[in-house]
Amino acid sequence: MHHALEAGDRVRGTTSPNPPVGCAIVDDSGVLISTGGTSPAGGPHAEVNALSAAGDKARGATAIVTLEPCNHTGRTGPCSHVLLEAGITKVVYLTRDTNPNAVGGADYLADHGVEVDYHPVRVEALQPWLRTLSTGRPHVTVKFAASIDGFTAAADGTSQWITGKAAREHVHKDRLRRDAIIVGTGTALADDPSLTARHAEGIPAERQPRRVVVGKRAVREGNLTRLGFEQYSSPEEALKVLWDTGARDVLVEGGASLATSFIQRGLVDRVQAYLAPMLMGAGRGVLTQALAPTLSGLERMKTEKITQLGDDVLVEMVRCLPDL
Amino acid sequence: MHHALEAGDRVRGTTSPNPPVGCAIVDDSGVLISTGGTSPAGGPHAEVNALSAAGDKARGATAIVTLEPCNHTGRTGPCSHVLLEAGITKVVYLTRDTNPNAVGGADYLADHGVEVDYHPVRVEALQPWLRTLSTGRPHVTVKFAASIDGFTAAADGTSQWITGKAAREHVHKDRLRRDAIIVGTGTALADDPSLTARHAEGIPAERQPRRVVVGKRAVREGNLTRLGFEQYSSPEEALKVLWDTGARDVLVEGGASLATSFIQRGLVDRVQAYLAPMLMGAGRGVLTQALAPTLSGLERMKTEKITQLGDDVLVEMVRCLPDL
Repeated sequence: MHHALEAGDRVRGTTSPNPPVGCAIVDDSGVLISTGGTSPAGGPHAEVNALSAAGDKARGATAIVTLEPCNHTGRTGPCSHVLLEAGITKVVYLTRDTNPNAVGGADYLADHGVEVDYHPVRVEALQPWLRTLSTGRPHVTVKFAASIDGFTAAADGTSQWITGKAAREHVHKDRLRRDAIIVGTGTALADDPSLTARHAEGIPAERQPRRVVVGKRAVREGNLTRLGFEQYSSPEEALKVLWDTGARDVLVEGGASLATSFIQRGLVDRVQAYLAPMLMGAGRGVLTQALAPTLSGLERMKTEKITQLGDDVLVEMVRCLPDL
Repeated sequence: MHHALEAGDRVRGTTSPNPPVGCAIVDDSGVLISTGGTSPAGGPHAEVNALSAAGDKARGATAIVTLEPCNHTGRTGPCSHVLLEAGITKVVYLTRDTNPNAVGGADYLADHGVEVDYHPVRVEALQPWLRTLSTGRPHVTVKFAASIDGFTAAADGTSQWITGKAAREHVHKDRLRRDAIIVGTGTALADDPSLTARHAEGIPAERQPRRVVVGKRAVREGNLTRLGFEQYSSPEEALKVLWDTGARDVLVEGGASLATSFIQRGLVDRVQAYLAPMLMGAGRGVLTQALAPTLSGLERMKTEKITQLGDDVLVEMVRCLPDL
């Protein structure tokens, strides 16, 4: 199973609008034959890649897939049919596909004599994509780096670096898994950011996430104009165009006004707080205004993951949706 | 070893000005014979309690002690002598005693033919006491509960409850391990706090930490006047009197002005941040003013422990001392 999960993790950030699925083919005694991850959109799905790598050894083998095999013909044929034709005798899948276009793969396989086992596991790589099935817009993560008392810059505006090396490297790795990185015009003008995933050797430029600026002010000559970027006037416009052009998982990196806009409009799925073991006492806040006047009006998120990064801590929180 | 550590943990909050030491006596084959923790000041040390419980079985046995056995006669005799007389043939200790009055226990035992083994382990229960050896004042922990963006109350002042049940229970257990709980007059007047360790069944009243108010304003009739409290005009005065009357480990619980005072005066050893997965955007801050105007002037602490408490997270940070 972990081979399938790893194969899915490896292709995060390269598959949208398709989900980053992983597939592992194992023989009777559980020995790994091959793995495969979803290719970029238009290319083969994870199952097809794993079957190609397995060749004849797939006959009589078991396929473990992080998502229920699709049952529809889009730009590629239905994976359920391909698995059957390759002679796979057992399919284990870890997540149900509720996408109405693709559903039915497990039933198809079972109807044709394949042993099908639904083994429910929370597949981290699929979470953003799964959530888009109910929201109908890209999955939005708001990220900030702050002192433990909630300041993203000192009183004089200095903010490099609040968090340490391990946390900054984590951010760069995380960017690679996203379809787009979004900042406000304020951040674009003040910081001249590159918004690239550095510390990621051997990563081709075309795997870099899209660089997106939200706001009406013009972006000055600098890293963004040099590297290329897209600009939209509002969060809604940005998410609509990003969705229509295939983005499913985007990261809002700042600043405070843009984060506040996204949150107040209900457009945030997840919050990543990188916190440094430092008290500032005053400085620039994470957001620019109160989300509610009183405690009972504020929304409580669900803490999903806590990671220590050197002396910093990353707290990842998920907004609760009624249907999740 | 874990029996000795547990015995020390159990007596935290009851031993000051002595350290909460734990001792385990084990036989040749490592089977536990008895354990003991330090009694309240004036009573027997951990080794003596463990030896009493072991009786004759101590002859030829090994003693594991979380702190090097003392070698001096205070209100009790030197533990090094007592261990020797009981026929202990091996002593393992986990922390060196650098207290100049007590030092020399390991050498005394080795000189008298006992096998002595220093097995360095970071004993959590001893950390506050060990630090007082270099600071000469009680160990001070500043605690706060805030949203993940650093607000301890919403814009309208409401703050009950930011953190959940598990975090609040943790606070009450933590209070029991302290010699005193300190609040400012502002908190005393606004919240009418009891400052007792609740959720702690079967704990006698005399084990409750001392209730301390710092500031000049008078405390109104309420929980504190009913339960009894001490009041001092400044952090320095409070710590001096607390030290002189035997307190070694105190908790500053609020509010923001008092925490800022303690920090600005360099009187804080450790910070406990209880953070809730909630963004407020605005509200009451953890401190009342900037600790430095620019990022490079701010002090970075060391993250010692991260604990998930329900959906909340507790980050414990230690100020770095040159000698620690």
